[in-house]
Amino acid sequence: MTLTVSLFMAFLGPAPAVSLRAQTTSAQASDSENSGLELMPVPASVKLESGQLAVTRNFTVALSGPRDPLLDRAAARFLHHLSLLTGMPFSEALSDPSKAALVVEAREASSALPQLGEDESYVLDVNSTQARLTAPNSLGVLHGLQTILQLVRTTPDGFSVPAVHIEDKPRFPWRGLMIDVSRHFIPVDAIKRNLDGMEALKLNVFHWHLSDNQGFRVQSKVFPKLQELGSDGLYYTQDEVRDVIAYARDRGIRVVPEFDMPGHATAWFVGYPELASAPGPYSIEREWGIFDPAMDPTRETTYRFLAKFIREMARLFPDAYFHIGGDEVNGKQWDANPSIQSFMKSHGMKTTLDLQHHFNSRVEKILENNHKIMIGWDEIFTSDLPKDTIIQSWRGQESLAEAARQGYRGVLSYGYYLDLMWPASQHYAVDPLGAGAATLDSEQSARILGGEACLWTEFVTPENVDTRIWPRTAAIAERLWSPQSVEDVSSMYQRLGVEDWRLELLGMQNRSEHALMMDRLAGPAGSASLEVLADTVEPVKGYTREHLAASAGIKQTSADPLNRLVDAVPPESEEARKFAEDVDALIYSGFTNKDAEARVRASLQSWHANDMRLAPLLAGSFLLKELAPLSNDLAELGAAGLAALDAADRGADLTPAQLQQWAPVIQESEKPQADLLLMVAPSVQRLLAAKTSPAPSIQSNPKTSSTK
Amino acid sequence: MTLTVSLFMAFLGPAPAVSLRAQTTSAQASDSENSGLELMPVPASVKLESGQLAVTRNFTVALSGPRDPLLDRAAARFLHHLSLLTGMPFSEALSDPSKAALVVEAREASSALPQLGEDESYVLDVNSTQARLTAPNSLGVLHGLQTILQLVRTTPDGFSVPAVHIEDKPRFPWRGLMIDVSRHFIPVDAIKRNLDGMEALKLNVFHWHLSDNQGFRVQSKVFPKLQELGSDGLYYTQDEVRDVIAYARDRGIRVVPEFDMPGHATAWFVGYPELASAPGPYSIEREWGIFDPAMDPTRETTYRFLAKFIREMARLFPDAYFHIGGDEVNGKQWDANPSIQSFMKSHGMKTTLDLQHHFNSRVEKILENNHKIMIGWDEIFTSDLPKDTIIQSWRGQESLAEAARQGYRGVLSYGYYLDLMWPASQHYAVDPLGAGAATLDSEQSARILGGEACLWTEFVTPENVDTRIWPRTAAIAERLWSPQSVEDVSSMYQRLGVEDWRLELLGMQNRSEHALMMDRLAGPAGSASLEVLADTVEPVKGYTREHLAASAGIKQTSADPLNRLVDAVPPESEEARKFAEDVDALIYSGFTNKDAEARVRASLQSWHANDMRLAPLLAGSFLLKELAPLSNDLAELGAAGLAALDAADRGADLTPAQLQQWAPVIQESEKPQADLLLMVAPSVQRLLAAKTSPAPSIQSNPKTSSTK
Repeated sequence: MTLTVSLFMAFLGPAPAVSLRAQTTSAQASDSENSGLELMPVPASVKLESGQLAVTRNFTVALSGPRDPLLDRAAARFLHHLSLLTGMPFSEALSDPSKAALVVEAREASSALPQLGEDESYVLDVNSTQARLTAPNSLGVLHGLQTILQLVRTTPDGFSVPAVHIEDKPRFPWRGLMIDVSRHFIPVDAIKRNLDGMEALKLNVFHWHLSDNQGFRVQSKVFPKLQELGSDGLYYTQDEVRDVIAYARDRGIRVVPEFDMPGHATAWFVGYPELASAPGPYSIEREWGIFDPAMDPTRETTYRFLAKFIREMARLFPDAYFHIGGDEVNGKQWDANPSIQSFMKSHGMKTTLDLQHHFNSRVEKILENNHKIMIGWDEIFTSDLPKDTIIQSWRGQESLAEAARQGYRGVLSYGYYLDLMWPASQHYAVDPLGAGAATLDSEQSARILGGEACLWTEFVTPENVDTRIWPRTAAIAERLWSPQSVEDVSSMYQRLGVEDWRLELLGMQNRSEHALMMDRLAGPAGSASLEVLADTVEPVKGYTREHLAASAGIKQTSADPLNRLVDAVPPESEEARKFAEDVDALIYSGFTNKDAEARVRASLQSWHANDMRLAPLLAGSFLLKELAPLSNDLAELGAAGLAALDAADRGADLTPAQLQQWAPVIQESEKPQADLLLMVAPSVQRLLAAKTSPAPSIQSNPKTSSTK
Repeated sequence: MTLTVSLFMAFLGPAPAVSLRAQTTSAQASDSENSGLELMPVPASVKLESGQLAVTRNFTVALSGPRDPLLDRAAARFLHHLSLLTGMPFSEALSDPSKAALVVEAREASSALPQLGEDESYVLDVNSTQARLTAPNSLGVLHGLQTILQLVRTTPDGFSVPAVHIEDKPRFPWRGLMIDVSRHFIPVDAIKRNLDGMEALKLNVFHWHLSDNQGFRVQSKVFPKLQELGSDGLYYTQDEVRDVIAYARDRGIRVVPEFDMPGHATAWFVGYPELASAPGPYSIEREWGIFDPAMDPTRETTYRFLAKFIREMARLFPDAYFHIGGDEVNGKQWDANPSIQSFMKSHGMKTTLDLQHHFNSRVEKILENNHKIMIGWDEIFTSDLPKDTIIQSWRGQESLAEAARQGYRGVLSYGYYLDLMWPASQHYAVDPLGAGAATLDSEQSARILGGEACLWTEFVTPENVDTRIWPRTAAIAERLWSPQSVEDVSSMYQRLGVEDWRLELLGMQNRSEHALMMDRLAGPAGSASLEVLADTVEPVKGYTREHLAASAGIKQTSADPLNRLVDAVPPESEEARKFAEDVDALIYSGFTNKDAEARVRASLQSWHANDMRLAPLLAGSFLLKELAPLSNDLAELGAAGLAALDAADRGADLTPAQLQQWAPVIQESEKPQADLLLMVAPSVQRLLAAKTSPAPSIQSNPKTSSTK
């Protein structure tokens, strides 16, 4: 599933200007955003009260309501997480409700599996003697426990939770994260870690993209050559799958498997070439892109295979929904196969899309026989599908709206592609009921079930997977859970920073993966100056990394090491965002804001001095030497920015000679180098523009207006 | 096993002065130390040749010699570790010897288990086309593979291994690490991680201290109340034990279990009070120290119990050696029990030590029946033990020498107690054949088998266990492996820094545990100024933490949270060590060394300015407010040091008024605060002394001369 984005889209501006615009132009943040409690996602309703509940080492939990082993485990996990956040050991023995610090009550025992549309609400009351969490069922309890963990504060007197009354429920019932484990295999421990992260952010659907051209990742006992020949030995056993599903279920998370068909299926054909529309042999695809191989939808043997395969997988994956992919079939193998062509002609099919719809409806029947409801990407949509089919859209809200008008349900993933390296603010601005879906009536709107963050793994390995998912996915989680009115970007970033910190304490590796890759790049002596450079850059956006390689004639493959700076840095530079805020504050103050000026100057000086210190390290490593131009540009940007500040100090503008001197570096620093963007460049550019007379027509960062 | 150390021993000086002394007074580093290859432990013989072997993504391994599944796994693990160090994916498929980048040959297949005294030697030849590793058996191969991993370098052209001829073998056959999992339970994943660390440093004995007053940590099926009532549910199942042993075996590591008896056994008595010498009931001990409960050595039922128990454990733990502890029996329960007293009288025993020796000899018979050889702490030693008994000494080389003269073998742990928070240099200076063992003849010396680093876990949890073991244990590993002539402390610290970095890349958490605990203390916004303070301190030394609590009337227990700065900082401050080196260089140069002066000044300025920035954070957290006096002292030390530098700039000495002004802070900064020592204080003191006329009699840091 790849979006086609033109090369110029790569040059996205940094988040800060977006952030500032939102601050100044968006509606006031809602009360729950402004509670000061730094909850994420923001609950539907928060009432802060006076007092606080002490969290001492005697903190205990009591369970009231019907006995539910899932809640026993949830209570133990809650106490373990409380230990991770406080460093205090707690007894996991359950307590008596009259004595417990926290009393939990679910009115009904859990269903065997979480179901789409179950009531996920909860009410939390905390006073200075006790916290009380009540919910219709265990799902609300799980969410409420996460809210309590987010409320724990360090004070001068100890750990505590503020007195509060929270009534909370999600806006959308489908709040997902998709991980592609085909392009790069992601092992079970990393999957589980990210399920923990999902629970922490109240996400409830793990969409497991299990097969694609580059790998078939589940053990099939019926067709063992699928994993034996299609995975390089990197696949999940059925026991591991069951273990992951149980792990997810304990966290209120449904697991929806995806087996992409009829395209994106090369890995199947390595073991079973007879499924394909052109003769084999096939081998596992090592490159990225859209490829020709597709299942043959005209042969009954294909459906007999799929019937057996789906029956096996339908038993392995208990969720009611089953994802068949269905995206990006280019039809070339079908066009080239005379027998398929004659089938199409004899069945009155005009296009390969017609043939794919025929395939889909055959597969849908198989799913029905196995009591599964079909979900697929935009391309599967036709108006003769059963009405319970769900469309997942990478195309956008208009695509979903069209389906919703015809009675179909939809899940949005357009705007939530984590691998495009967008800033959190950009994902945050995408609403499943915004844009083309904004005009739906209430009945139609109700068919928009929510959304899914998607991580495609061309450039993701177990070494950096957490940095690609977190913390940005927390912003998407908030969009899908919180009231639509919650949209203050500045508040979001404030809380996102807290989550970034908290997730690492809870066992994610969003920070440590970065630290480890930087350590490897810098070598045993470490390098503060490599950090200085790394803090100012971001990976190129969209599909620029593929496009740059293609224009350089480089074939990227799944065997390429992902050990460069672009693989190590987070998708979003906090330093660049804060620098942009300071630069804007400085400019808007007419260069009178001394605090902002001091911070801006310190950054510029540090960048200016950095290249000289860093150059020897870069020269000594084949992995780092590609960074030399970037480091040089950063130094020059530092010098240019300092010249603008000096001009401001003199109450003057930059001279034409100065402007001419800095023009090349500004231009240069906008280009990707080593697949990285110098994210501080647009802010320096604004600084220069503000000290240029007459002021250029650019009012604020011009790049950010074209990010969508 | 606790050493009795008087309170004043707490005030150890920092490592640097030791380091400097070693640099100036010790013998020249050997050739292999000076090879520039940064190997640790230093091999017996290294010859650097010209050229290098490229490590590309096509790097492959071939196994020649008899088929050995252990080596298949070792080759796969080697390639995995090579991936972690380079970020390059490698195929794990074994290659043909004529084509492989690395050819490995063990002349014999592995024995079922590693045995004490097996040949562990290897020869490694690397030229620009191939590396060749040969060894008599798999143990040498395992060690040689670790040497290759240490040789991998990043160059301007790629990763490579230098051409080299290495012939290597250990100096001692018993090179161990003991972990106490009783006082705090250490889970299997942390044990395995540290077995990886042991393999990386060529250690070969994991001594598992499995029972003590505070917990019985292994599942017994014969006597299940041992773990059910004696462990708070924190114990290893027998399956987990077998898994750990197999994991260790794959890494050439023997696993020696210790069940401490007849003292240190309160946890046994919770389930089986009839074993004790005084009536119960007993509960798990929650405090630290030496306690009265001891098994009753006069009842046959005790030995019948032990016979069954040891039979069960002897089958679970396959190593030939079985550790019975035997330390610190205070005899009080025996003195107080009339029936035991009359037994002693009727058997002609004068002291409780006689009774313990009676117990030991009964237990030894049981071990013999189970084909096990006894090992125990100093206290078990009497001259009528079987000659194959091994004495492990916490008392010192003289104790071992005495046993060796009488024909007994010994393992040194005196000087290798990691929980005492000594600097690596101090452990490094302890030689099993030094001090009281230096006068042994060659036959007696051969009975000194080696040594063991020991980690007692009063103040260690799974959150900081790696920081307590690594990297310091690497210095002990080198002492036990490398030729005795390898003793250059400066070279050791250089290579220890590389290992600290490498171990984290290989999956240890020696750095990330510290980072995570600091993150928790600092809160979501982080705090560079908390890092500045943390970098200058070390935990108090020896048993000072216990003594300080005792003198404050505080009862420390196993339920105490270990979440303070003292728990988060590494045992040794690299910053203090480097600052001391710079200060000494500055003083020895007569204040003319400008580079040293610039670094010293920058540090002093940073400390001087830090308190103001840090104070608000400290005031806001109950966990941090204990640090306020320390932070203030650091600021004043900064000011004092700057005054000395300013005096030097003027070519003058400090005035009497200045000296009087700084005297209180110097005195204050020598005292522990918050269980921490300001490790930069002695260096600032030397700086002041150097600018005082007449110079005080102190020549260098007076503290370091009394560290042993």
